[in-house]
Amino acid sequence: MALVTQHTPGENTAAPPDFTRSDTRIRELLDYVRDISALSSLGSLAGWDQNTQMPGGAAEVRGTQMAVLQGVLHDRWSSDKLGKLLAQLEAPVQSAPFTDADRGLVRQALRDHTRSTKLPRSLVEESARHEAVSYDAWHKARSNNDFASFAPFLAHTIELQRETADRMGYVETRYDALLDEYEPGLTASRVNILFTPIRAISTALLQRIVASGNKVNASCLQGHFASDKQVDLSVAILKGMGYNFTYGAIAQSPHPFTTDVGTPFDVRVTIRTNEQLLQQSLMAAIHEGGHALYEQGSAPTLVNTPVAGGASLGVHESQSRLWENAIGRSTPYWQGQFGLVRNVFPEQYANVDATTFARALNHVEPSLIRVEADEVTYNLHIIIRFELEKAMVNGDVAVESLPRMWNEKYQEYLGITPPNNADGILQDVHWTSGFGYFPTYTLGNLNSAQIFNTLHKALPNFDELLAKGDTATILSWLREHMYKFGAIYQPDELLQRVTGESLNPDYFTHYLVNKFEKIYRLSK
Amino acid sequence: MALVTQHTPGENTAAPPDFTRSDTRIRELLDYVRDISALSSLGSLAGWDQNTQMPGGAAEVRGTQMAVLQGVLHDRWSSDKLGKLLAQLEAPVQSAPFTDADRGLVRQALRDHTRSTKLPRSLVEESARHEAVSYDAWHKARSNNDFASFAPFLAHTIELQRETADRMGYVETRYDALLDEYEPGLTASRVNILFTPIRAISTALLQRIVASGNKVNASCLQGHFASDKQVDLSVAILKGMGYNFTYGAIAQSPHPFTTDVGTPFDVRVTIRTNEQLLQQSLMAAIHEGGHALYEQGSAPTLVNTPVAGGASLGVHESQSRLWENAIGRSTPYWQGQFGLVRNVFPEQYANVDATTFARALNHVEPSLIRVEADEVTYNLHIIIRFELEKAMVNGDVAVESLPRMWNEKYQEYLGITPPNNADGILQDVHWTSGFGYFPTYTLGNLNSAQIFNTLHKALPNFDELLAKGDTATILSWLREHMYKFGAIYQPDELLQRVTGESLNPDYFTHYLVNKFEKIYRLSK
Repeated sequence: MALVTQHTPGENTAAPPDFTRSDTRIRELLDYVRDISALSSLGSLAGWDQNTQMPGGAAEVRGTQMAVLQGVLHDRWSSDKLGKLLAQLEAPVQSAPFTDADRGLVRQALRDHTRSTKLPRSLVEESARHEAVSYDAWHKARSNNDFASFAPFLAHTIELQRETADRMGYVETRYDALLDEYEPGLTASRVNILFTPIRAISTALLQRIVASGNKVNASCLQGHFASDKQVDLSVAILKGMGYNFTYGAIAQSPHPFTTDVGTPFDVRVTIRTNEQLLQQSLMAAIHEGGHALYEQGSAPTLVNTPVAGGASLGVHESQSRLWENAIGRSTPYWQGQFGLVRNVFPEQYANVDATTFARALNHVEPSLIRVEADEVTYNLHIIIRFELEKAMVNGDVAVESLPRMWNEKYQEYLGITPPNNADGILQDVHWTSGFGYFPTYTLGNLNSAQIFNTLHKALPNFDELLAKGDTATILSWLREHMYKFGAIYQPDELLQRVTGESLNPDYFTHYLVNKFEKIYRLSK
Repeated sequence: MALVTQHTPGENTAAPPDFTRSDTRIRELLDYVRDISALSSLGSLAGWDQNTQMPGGAAEVRGTQMAVLQGVLHDRWSSDKLGKLLAQLEAPVQSAPFTDADRGLVRQALRDHTRSTKLPRSLVEESARHEAVSYDAWHKARSNNDFASFAPFLAHTIELQRETADRMGYVETRYDALLDEYEPGLTASRVNILFTPIRAISTALLQRIVASGNKVNASCLQGHFASDKQVDLSVAILKGMGYNFTYGAIAQSPHPFTTDVGTPFDVRVTIRTNEQLLQQSLMAAIHEGGHALYEQGSAPTLVNTPVAGGASLGVHESQSRLWENAIGRSTPYWQGQFGLVRNVFPEQYANVDATTFARALNHVEPSLIRVEADEVTYNLHIIIRFELEKAMVNGDVAVESLPRMWNEKYQEYLGITPPNNADGILQDVHWTSGFGYFPTYTLGNLNSAQIFNTLHKALPNFDELLAKGDTATILSWLREHMYKFGAIYQPDELLQRVTGESLNPDYFTHYLVNKFEKIYRLSK
């Protein structure tokens, strides 16, 4: 049985990071960024609404609203007032009495200020307006399996993203400027270095699995699962992870996501249900729950600042993947939580045990849909998107040829071809907003394995805890050593603080190979 | 059977009102107010969210968000730039080539500009912050029947509202300044003049009904009605009225309301369900549907301006009451729509006919809850609130004595005393935001009866249309003669345009007495 553990923001934070509020300049900066954060949260709320319940006919008027809001935020981030305040603080903040929180705040604010001074308000507004209408176009195009209707929107996104990159500036390739937005300092050549072994190892492992002829029976995930019952189960699973509904909410959306409407006091998740396949909502709940735990674990002292929340997308994804895969697809976890599944679906799971269920969740098979992919093939989906994004941003790809390129790459990397664009190039929401996001998913997997390794060393009884249904001890450790710091530290510094070393992709490749050699009983 | 009639924004508006977009100053003003409207819509969305799904623990952070947004809106409304633009337009706009839409826009913008210049930003921010936390306190206090926990919030609302009134200025009483916010030019003495005959006639009619000994059997509204089925019925009823879900949405909230997130393209309603009493959600759906039809009927040319939407709260309420009472509690309406009720609740209504159902909805009985009150007693609830508001704003009432005063007035006007504060003074959400709103409900009833009279003259087959399930003809008339003009005209001018005369309360008293003399078979 699961212990239902609900964490309150700030719990376990005996010494939460905080700002030097006695300093007038810090106070002035906090007041300044509070207004920006508050307005920005209303934008996040509008995004949540757009994905969960906004009427279809409101897309255009919402586009105007988002454009105006982004314009207001742009003016505030780019103001001379903020520039002067940051110039006054930039040097002094590096030494005593200033804290790591102060330094993080100044660094993040400077990053946003610099970015905003480089981009004209008109571009920011147009990008926001376009994102809203583009979302609507994508949603309709996917429902109707009609790429042609989405193509002009994607073409305009490419134009806007290229202009953004050109204005931001870059050393090697235009795409680097976009990557940097999501992961500070990340470049396409760095991604190439990281992705090359991942691609080789994933492909080789997949071939060994196929060659072994061994199978994992995943039939217990198929059947009929009423949508509202899946929501009930997701709620129970999230509570069991320690997600606190006093500061959160759940809804359904075409693409699952987590949003911060005021971290750590308002952090929401969405799932998507498929009545024939339980796995889809269940793993989305755990994945988004991982993101949400990270946000809810941010110290309350950081509220209304740009250092509340995650250090970067790659670090954020490390937590969604840690909970979804390393924990949520492990046998000990389901030994602790399977009772929740049985409670909600007693008939379907009368004759299934936790081990069989966990094993089913690790069924490996090349498939078309990224968000449902197993751990072995997942990164191949990302590599395909990375290559296409580079082509769109750096090269001269005709938008009409993208579905063909997509399908060819699926054939090359995964050995399958999408039967239609809805399950192909139209499957992700991300290209309604821009490029540079996808690589952070694989980065998340790498970070995740490294942190998972540290967790096992810090909590030698890790598997026993999970098997007892105790996720609270694990969450407490993560909150204390990682979550409470929000975005105070840069990704690499945070990873060093948590794990003692910089990003090392070996943790992931070892994790992956060891795990699936066991599951598929592969000879070494 | 009901005709399912869905109206698209702008339909039936062969000549929609529009602005003189060829004029540079008008264009500049439209750009300026577009930004304000867009930001303001995000505030409406936050209000919708707060009432329908916001996590309880987010009240404080939401308070900050709302305060910041109101501060930004205040700065924009009070800016010198806007002042100068309006000064340039104020005189020229009165003559050709400028349109009624131009004049309305300048008038409304000037009203908001003047108001904002009178109120300091700090007061506006504090009022917004307080409203958010006060809503949370009210919600908890009502659930726990604990007035004492709400009292300090109410006391602070009184302080803030008094300061607002003092800064706005007034001729007779401080309360007048607050009334004017919701209904331009309305004063307490004018309300007194209107309310005195209403009070006398309502009381006399109630006495005649009681004395007659005649009863209306309302038992068919009681039973068990599953909450989700009630939502289904509300959706069907709203569609039947012509509410268009492509530009709208429905949710549940502790207090039903309609909100404009981008009129006419995003207009949403909420209901509250009571599983023992169908009437509560059903009449809320029709009531809020009336508000929403008015907003959805606003000409699309008016989008993103302060003249999209209703002319005033009193005029707005005329449409909710017209649909809820004059139409929605009539026998012909249910002859046309009862099939929808039977479809959703076939067992409950197997042996009930439309006439019996409509009659049940007109059951008169002094009751505690305003939103469920019958038409005879409804205005007495309003008069009680009006008197208490006057006392709070103009006088020196101790907050602790308000529950006693409330209960005494219920005994005096309705002959009943609330058994607890949850069904007494804590029943309404309105006092979390301020005072001056309630009188517009009775004003709405008066406007409604006058417009209903005109509708009957304009459509002599009015009852036949309803009985055939044709609400579309009625809605088309209202859109063409009233809704499409949004807030271009002031309330009295609009009423004259629609009905040919100024507000005349006799229409309401005649409507009320005639209707209930028939229903209760009273001797003349």
